[in-house]
Amino acid sequence: MTHRNVIVGCAQMGPIAKADTRARVVKRQVELLREAKGRGVEFVVFPELAFTTFFPRWLIEDQTEIDFYFETEMPGPETQPLFEAAAELGIGFYIGYAELAVEDGLRRHFNTSIIVDRTGAIVGKYRKIHLPGHAEPVPGRDAQHLEKRYFEPGNLGFPVWRTLGGIAGMCICNDRRWPETYRVMALQGAEIVFVGYNTPDDHTGVFDFDQLTGFHHQLSLQAGAYQNATWVAAAAKAGNEEGSNMIGLSMIVAPSGQIATMATTTGDELISARCDLEMGALYKRTIFDFARHREPAHYGLIVERKGPILPE
Amino acid sequence: MTHRNVIVGCAQMGPIAKADTRARVVKRQVELLREAKGRGVEFVVFPELAFTTFFPRWLIEDQTEIDFYFETEMPGPETQPLFEAAAELGIGFYIGYAELAVEDGLRRHFNTSIIVDRTGAIVGKYRKIHLPGHAEPVPGRDAQHLEKRYFEPGNLGFPVWRTLGGIAGMCICNDRRWPETYRVMALQGAEIVFVGYNTPDDHTGVFDFDQLTGFHHQLSLQAGAYQNATWVAAAAKAGNEEGSNMIGLSMIVAPSGQIATMATTTGDELISARCDLEMGALYKRTIFDFARHREPAHYGLIVERKGPILPE
Repeated sequence: MTHRNVIVGCAQMGPIAKADTRARVVKRQVELLREAKGRGVEFVVFPELAFTTFFPRWLIEDQTEIDFYFETEMPGPETQPLFEAAAELGIGFYIGYAELAVEDGLRRHFNTSIIVDRTGAIVGKYRKIHLPGHAEPVPGRDAQHLEKRYFEPGNLGFPVWRTLGGIAGMCICNDRRWPETYRVMALQGAEIVFVGYNTPDDHTGVFDFDQLTGFHHQLSLQAGAYQNATWVAAAAKAGNEEGSNMIGLSMIVAPSGQIATMATTTGDELISARCDLEMGALYKRTIFDFARHREPAHYGLIVERKGPILPE
Repeated sequence: MTHRNVIVGCAQMGPIAKADTRARVVKRQVELLREAKGRGVEFVVFPELAFTTFFPRWLIEDQTEIDFYFETEMPGPETQPLFEAAAELGIGFYIGYAELAVEDGLRRHFNTSIIVDRTGAIVGKYRKIHLPGHAEPVPGRDAQHLEKRYFEPGNLGFPVWRTLGGIAGMCICNDRRWPETYRVMALQGAEIVFVGYNTPDDHTGVFDFDQLTGFHHQLSLQAGAYQNATWVAAAAKAGNEEGSNMIGLSMIVAPSGQIATMATTTGDELISARCDLEMGALYKRTIFDFARHREPAHYGLIVERKGPILPE
């Protein structure tokens, strides 16, 4: 039996305050990278929007203030030290950030993640496709969820990349709840999927719903891993960030659906696991041999409809 | 807050021997129906291929012997008492059976399930789409898995039906592991999905795989329910059937992904839960408001590819 082992870490990050500078945040990230190095980690997953506080919780009307949270270049002057440390340590990483791009002469805002290889070179970029929340504030909420206001949906699809001796894909936060996310990557051979997220458990105002937030997070990752025979490595922003309780629960899930490691704090915490990228092969040969068992002729509605259409 | 409560039961069935007659099996089913009536149940889910032993574990070469396991009419003389008892008790049901149909002058074999309403009338039929296993026996296995030999894939898609005061769909056994199954039904507004299954935990010869059989079963049902905001009611054949260990673990899962009830034996056992068909509405208005959040433009590969195509 062959193995392709890679030691993967998730660098969970405790809260980032509105007043925190990028320099200070990057310093924490570099510390996590150094811990990772000491623990033999070859690739580190950082959270979504990892350089600033999770600003979509606020209604901000001034575009200059909004754009403060966005990166116009990656790396930029303040994020460069992260890339330098990673290259120095020989560690690759995934990280999420708010991206302000100029495309076709238009300023475009995306919730973006990248894969950086161990030389510090960006090898892949993904832009979040499933934006949750609202474009307009919901009256009466302490914390808003205005991702649909500040970002447009990603326009790069769900690509995969050959890296780490295998095939890797990316998604961001809410993407992980949608089975289509993993499936599209699995149909390109994904063996490991990186996920950064910011998930509070106190902002919907529906207790029955909020109390299950951690369970739903875990269920989505485990199902995505098992049903697609892929590793999933997910890193959270955690703890009380500007009054919002972020669940943490960073974890690495095996192609079996088993949780290989999980964060046990709501602060900065590095978790790691040995991920054998060959592990999914057993499933891909048997129960999830897509080429033998899938029946796409019966899946048409998945692409033909956005919302449901009820029967007569 | 409105509710649409229906009391649903799953009638798990212990082993059915090769030598058991249909009359004897139906007698057990009628007993389970009577227990269901006493417990206020309005609809009962029976297992897959519920009238006979799970014959695809054997290589049978004589077509007459194979056809013995199939029903040419439903109800037929031996299955009629089940329909009569259900109508007498005013209970609807789902049940699975091997169907020998004649279509376009051809004899066709399907792994089929039906929904029968409380008057005893068949209101819906489904034919299993995701057939697992092999068309040819695998050398060295004690128990084969020859569903691909004895059945052809279902040709009726994944329809839903208005029944029980809501919208119900069906699938069978291995279908429950495929996220496409639930999604196609959810895109037609499914509020409850019925599943019958026969799942052994000792037939792959891979220990790492077999020992997780119960976990994978549960994970698939919970993810299907949560990610589609639907109830899932699943009934097993359980226990040692002709030398095969069937897992049981019949369960009813809520749209929250929570397990509402689960069988605790591997014999004939009725479990039941109050299912509020309105429960999924909370999810369908928020996190899983498909019409607001899905992005089908990026899901194309799900229907364009059967198996994976790897990147360069």
